[in-house]
Amino acid sequence: MPLPPEMARLFTEEKIDFVKRSGLKAEVLEPGRVCLHMPLAGNQNHIGSMYAGALFTLAEIPGGALFLTSFDSQRFYPLIKEMNLRFRRPAASDIRIEASLSGEEITRIQDEAERLGKSDYRLDLQLLDTAGEVVAESCALYQLRKH
Amino acid sequence: MPLPPEMARLFTEEKIDFVKRSGLKAEVLEPGRVCLHMPLAGNQNHIGSMYAGALFTLAEIPGGALFLTSFDSQRFYPLIKEMNLRFRRPAASDIRIEASLSGEEITRIQDEAERLGKSDYRLDLQLLDTAGEVVAESCALYQLRKH
Repeated sequence: MPLPPEMARLFTEEKIDFVKRSGLKAEVLEPGRVCLHMPLAGNQNHIGSMYAGALFTLAEIPGGALFLTSFDSQRFYPLIKEMNLRFRRPAASDIRIEASLSGEEITRIQDEAERLGKSDYRLDLQLLDTAGEVVAESCALYQLRKH
Repeated sequence: MPLPPEMARLFTEEKIDFVKRSGLKAEVLEPGRVCLHMPLAGNQNHIGSMYAGALFTLAEIPGGALFLTSFDSQRFYPLIKEMNLRFRRPAASDIRIEASLSGEEITRIQDEAERLGKSDYRLDLQLLDTAGEVVAESCALYQLRKH
């Protein structure tokens, strides 16, 4: 079974110290859909916009957050295999990201991981500032693995 | 003029709070060559190896550290445009990275940025564990910009 929402939130925001220190917050954690938020405060770079590592973290965590809300966390765990980030413009505000997986895709991934021990899934996402402008685009490849 | 070594170290390790919190340390900061170190302690993920965001940070900072040791920081500043990270195996120890730019490349980049206001430079790097195994590979595109 997927984790209950309050547990998924705790795992998303606090399980990994590196993520907790960034101040990342989960706004939506539903089966198949997550929205996350990264504050600018505490995450500025040398020119006052959001440091690339904070943008990477915001782009990477949806893969794990979707795992928590959508897959059986007793039988599987997720890994990241590859990530590409294109920085489009300075991220001069708090930044949000939304990611989703369809029910069909969730079933496909979990069935394949059950049969073969692993299954890849891909998330192509946009990082948005508070004006709704795309500050960065990510392409990430994850793998669901059977314990 | 490039920054004096003690200033380059301070800027590399402490200028960006997000980086400071990760515990990243500079081992070598020379014109055209830098070696950086990321501790596993405090940066573990959900399976006890180094979180991808800490690996990203270790892969990203060499672009700025080489800027500090090699370019005129009064007249120029660096941006990251794109980063690709391939995660090859779990990073189960402290991780190191080394990056270099030749004197010819430094001259080319700075001359071009002087003439055109900006110049791209690329770093393809390997992240190594304490056994010398490659845990991840990065391809990063930076841009030197004239103030």
